[in-house]
Amino acid sequence: MTPSVKTLEDPVVRDFIDRARVAHLATASAKGAPHNIPLCFGFDGVRFYFAIDQKPKRLSGLMIKRMRNIAENPKVALVIDHYDEDWHELAYVLIFGRAAIVAGAEYPTCLESLRKKYSQYQTMDLQAETNPIVRIEPERVHVWGSRFAAAGSS
Amino acid sequence: MTPSVKTLEDPVVRDFIDRARVAHLATASAKGAPHNIPLCFGFDGVRFYFAIDQKPKRLSGLMIKRMRNIAENPKVALVIDHYDEDWHELAYVLIFGRAAIVAGAEYPTCLESLRKKYSQYQTMDLQAETNPIVRIEPERVHVWGSRFAAAGSS
Repeated sequence: MTPSVKTLEDPVVRDFIDRARVAHLATASAKGAPHNIPLCFGFDGVRFYFAIDQKPKRLSGLMIKRMRNIAENPKVALVIDHYDEDWHELAYVLIFGRAAIVAGAEYPTCLESLRKKYSQYQTMDLQAETNPIVRIEPERVHVWGSRFAAAGSS
Repeated sequence: MTPSVKTLEDPVVRDFIDRARVAHLATASAKGAPHNIPLCFGFDGVRFYFAIDQKPKRLSGLMIKRMRNIAENPKVALVIDHYDEDWHELAYVLIFGRAAIVAGAEYPTCLESLRKKYSQYQTMDLQAETNPIVRIEPERVHVWGSRFAAAGSS
């Protein structure tokens, strides 16, 4: 089991993550070509989750680029940030971790949690076969911004 | 000279990029470990630019992680997106390109352009030695979202 990354337990960091509606996921192919995508995510205090809710015309959920990158190279960088015209308010939480596809009983649990956060998912018919859910196990976290002065990075 | 990527000439795409205040940059180390960071950016219709305005205590601008990644592996993925609770309004422009450090007379030109877009830069003392500006030459662009129905990807 992955131990919790301490920085994520900081209440200011946790609150910042819980309020965010979107995160950005960087993956890289085996050859190191990066990819970057905005996504909706869940966080259970330890791990992050996201669902593949798009269905490209001729591709199943596992064939899309971010999923092929994860299969080749599970290292990911997920960033959650706040932009503000007052640059003293700028902040981000950058999570380095490993991605894996959720299976078995974990799938409905994660889906329920995503539906709780995003009502938009409640009317979508999501199935494990076509709409995989990915779990990110954080290994290292870097926080930046004056609001996180007390949190440190781990 | 890098030819212009056609999708970026689409007026809807151009307007979307010009209105955005923040983008997210994915880089990867030589070993393929991704990194992801929010940043302020300029766009001249062909190329993207950003400045390293942070000065970590003991690191010069060239030593920070995203710059080390770019030196090892110039491939980057820059995403500009719009989040909306109405998911029909979700949209992103994902630019795959190569990053290089701006030198010579290009530096003051880029800095002036960034200062025009972001008044916050006008009072910052930015110098080529400590605050490099990076240019991204787009090679491929993927657009997603119903507003871009006419734009296509190239």
